[in-house]
Amino acid sequence: MEDSFSPYFHFVDNELYCEKTPVKKIAKEFGTPVYIYSKNAILEKIREYKEAFKEYPTLICYAAKANSNLSILKIFQEEGLGLDIVSGGELYRGLKAEFDPKKIVYAGVGKTDKELIDAIDTGILSFNVESLMELDVLDELSEKVGKKADISIRVNPDVNPKTHPYISTGLRKSKFGIDMEDALEAYKIASRKKNLNIVGIHCHIGSQIMDVSPYEEAVEKLVQLVFKLKREGIELRHIDIGGGLGIRYRPEDNPPHPKELAEIVIPYIKETGLKLLIEPGRSLVGEAGILVSQVLFLKDKGDKHFIIIDSGMNDLLRPAMYQAYHHILSVEKKKEKVIADIVGPICETGDFFALDREIDNLNRGDYLAVMSAGAYGFSMSSNYNTRPRAAEVLVDGENFYLIRNRESYQYIIQPEINEKIQGEVK
Amino acid sequence: MEDSFSPYFHFVDNELYCEKTPVKKIAKEFGTPVYIYSKNAILEKIREYKEAFKEYPTLICYAAKANSNLSILKIFQEEGLGLDIVSGGELYRGLKAEFDPKKIVYAGVGKTDKELIDAIDTGILSFNVESLMELDVLDELSEKVGKKADISIRVNPDVNPKTHPYISTGLRKSKFGIDMEDALEAYKIASRKKNLNIVGIHCHIGSQIMDVSPYEEAVEKLVQLVFKLKREGIELRHIDIGGGLGIRYRPEDNPPHPKELAEIVIPYIKETGLKLLIEPGRSLVGEAGILVSQVLFLKDKGDKHFIIIDSGMNDLLRPAMYQAYHHILSVEKKKEKVIADIVGPICETGDFFALDREIDNLNRGDYLAVMSAGAYGFSMSSNYNTRPRAAEVLVDGENFYLIRNRESYQYIIQPEINEKIQGEVK
Repeated sequence: MEDSFSPYFHFVDNELYCEKTPVKKIAKEFGTPVYIYSKNAILEKIREYKEAFKEYPTLICYAAKANSNLSILKIFQEEGLGLDIVSGGELYRGLKAEFDPKKIVYAGVGKTDKELIDAIDTGILSFNVESLMELDVLDELSEKVGKKADISIRVNPDVNPKTHPYISTGLRKSKFGIDMEDALEAYKIASRKKNLNIVGIHCHIGSQIMDVSPYEEAVEKLVQLVFKLKREGIELRHIDIGGGLGIRYRPEDNPPHPKELAEIVIPYIKETGLKLLIEPGRSLVGEAGILVSQVLFLKDKGDKHFIIIDSGMNDLLRPAMYQAYHHILSVEKKKEKVIADIVGPICETGDFFALDREIDNLNRGDYLAVMSAGAYGFSMSSNYNTRPRAAEVLVDGENFYLIRNRESYQYIIQPEINEKIQGEVK
Repeated sequence: MEDSFSPYFHFVDNELYCEKTPVKKIAKEFGTPVYIYSKNAILEKIREYKEAFKEYPTLICYAAKANSNLSILKIFQEEGLGLDIVSGGELYRGLKAEFDPKKIVYAGVGKTDKELIDAIDTGILSFNVESLMELDVLDELSEKVGKKADISIRVNPDVNPKTHPYISTGLRKSKFGIDMEDALEAYKIASRKKNLNIVGIHCHIGSQIMDVSPYEEAVEKLVQLVFKLKREGIELRHIDIGGGLGIRYRPEDNPPHPKELAEIVIPYIKETGLKLLIEPGRSLVGEAGILVSQVLFLKDKGDKHFIIIDSGMNDLLRPAMYQAYHHILSVEKKKEKVIADIVGPICETGDFFALDREIDNLNRGDYLAVMSAGAYGFSMSSNYNTRPRAAEVLVDGENFYLIRNRESYQYIIQPEINEKIQGEVK
């Protein structure tokens, strides 16, 4: 398994390559920690999704929150995909990457007035409205802007996606969406708003889903509601079933193929004749990215062996936050193996990448790769411990491009020292 | 209790003030989310520490990781304190805030060569060395720089601080320090290094510690080791007992006073005649800061009431990360109370500030304050969901100063679009 974690991250003569580029070459040129993404791994996933859904009119809206680097967004834009955003910042990024506003959908329980106004003004495909109060506010703000807003209601199908509780978003007790039994009434209210056009229905049941059956349950409920709405004279244009397909974090993981999702949902959607929207994020970029670090120190404490690397939980929060497993490979294969805790430099015991993990017997200066780090990696990273955030590099065959500069200390403190600052240090 | 969470955050005519400034005034001027710090609350804590340790030669080194805003650092610098850093970025900040290098101590298990060289060159008070390999590397790099490095060894007293496992750092199985029984040998090795001066001993047992007894256990062990070293001809100048005193998160919390710490440790330290170093972080700034947010939406789902605010887990990670409790107050007191989940706009169920919490019956547009957010608040914040990080404001009586600009979208994407970028979007 280790020899071929993916066709895009593979070993040539015991050395890890991203496509046709040695990972070490990039690490040496740009330093570590560095996120490395395979452009062709992303393109391959896009093809898989397009192929899976080709028999039915489907707009694939990439979920920007998974990885919002502008150069990554640009790949999706060039491939004709839409964009699923959750903030004004993601709208700003989407427009920078030249997405057609009529392919942008905007979900999120806490949209500010400023964010709503910007999106109304832009004229996006759909506001996925999450509460009755948001309907009122969106109507008022649309009147103010002088443009009607196209909306869907995010309904909560009360389906258990069997994933981490923090990323289960379709359960009834969660903050997201409007419950199924209240949705009809919400649509009726929306239909009376002068400045809103009802265009669709939306749901999103969770993330890192490894079994597509909860989608069937959710879509069945959505379609029933669509027919109920039709009987009430409320006609929709699209059904947005959200995202959430899982990826391979462990070598033995076997996440569902987009085809399985298509096969399970299209028969239901077909009955309605409505356009289908899907919002994959992690499954498009997750396996296409790795986080490469250098070993700083080795250390033994009793029977514990520690490999201390130059990445920390500020660079990749998932192990500390979700107790998430990431596979870790030595960039140059070693013959000997050890059992080690692979930990970062942050002053917290929670700052680890792997505990009691069998791994190549690494030395100081060696490089290692944290696999499947393309989604919710850089996008959740911080400057904790005043650590500059990592560089990001995109690989295309034997070419590679810096797509985000490693942050400088100057950049980090810039908002604390400019001319507007009235504090103690100017 | 609610009337006086602290003398620095108190109600005047049902309105929350920071010192003599209405919190609402700041929120209106700078927007939300905004971190607000009370300068006099910080000064008061500094006085408490100085007073507690005045009978013994003690250097108080503020732990920058708790809150590293330059204007906050400057307060400690002006009060004559030292600085406890854990990275090159924190060294950079410390020097910007004009700390005397001879008052800077540098701990951390994963110091890079670049970070070590910068600190050697600066000539800091002490490198708190965490492994034998670090001793070797530091010796080599010191030779290269042509300056000797002053060092302490961070020993691991194997003491249970009875706090969250992620912030317990003195247990034997943790990545930190060198175990007690290996420390003598480590000092002997250090004493043979030509480019290292042994100056002290260091330990740090954890964070948010609510009972000082583990300090006694740790210090007793340290002092025994100091005498053992003396018998071996290794003389030290200081004992650094780290930080970790807890603060009040819940109204009923009763954290230890610095006096209790002083009373328990000074008798032991006295026997050695060595200078004492302490490294408080959270206990100096934690209660001195609040995170102020505005209510965006209210929402009812069955028997669940949600208050959706404009701060998210990207602004304050502690509830999601450590399941931490933060007290929350309405900025304007209301007569009615409700039971609610107080949640943020981030698209994760883990994005919450309080679950099933009794709180004033807030309306859209109202402000609320997340209390005791001065430490590990802004410093752990991120741009997840492309959310600009919050503004920071320092209050001094009826005056208040912007000490960090709210980030702009332009600032966030700057490292992705400048001239060095070779990616898809320029």
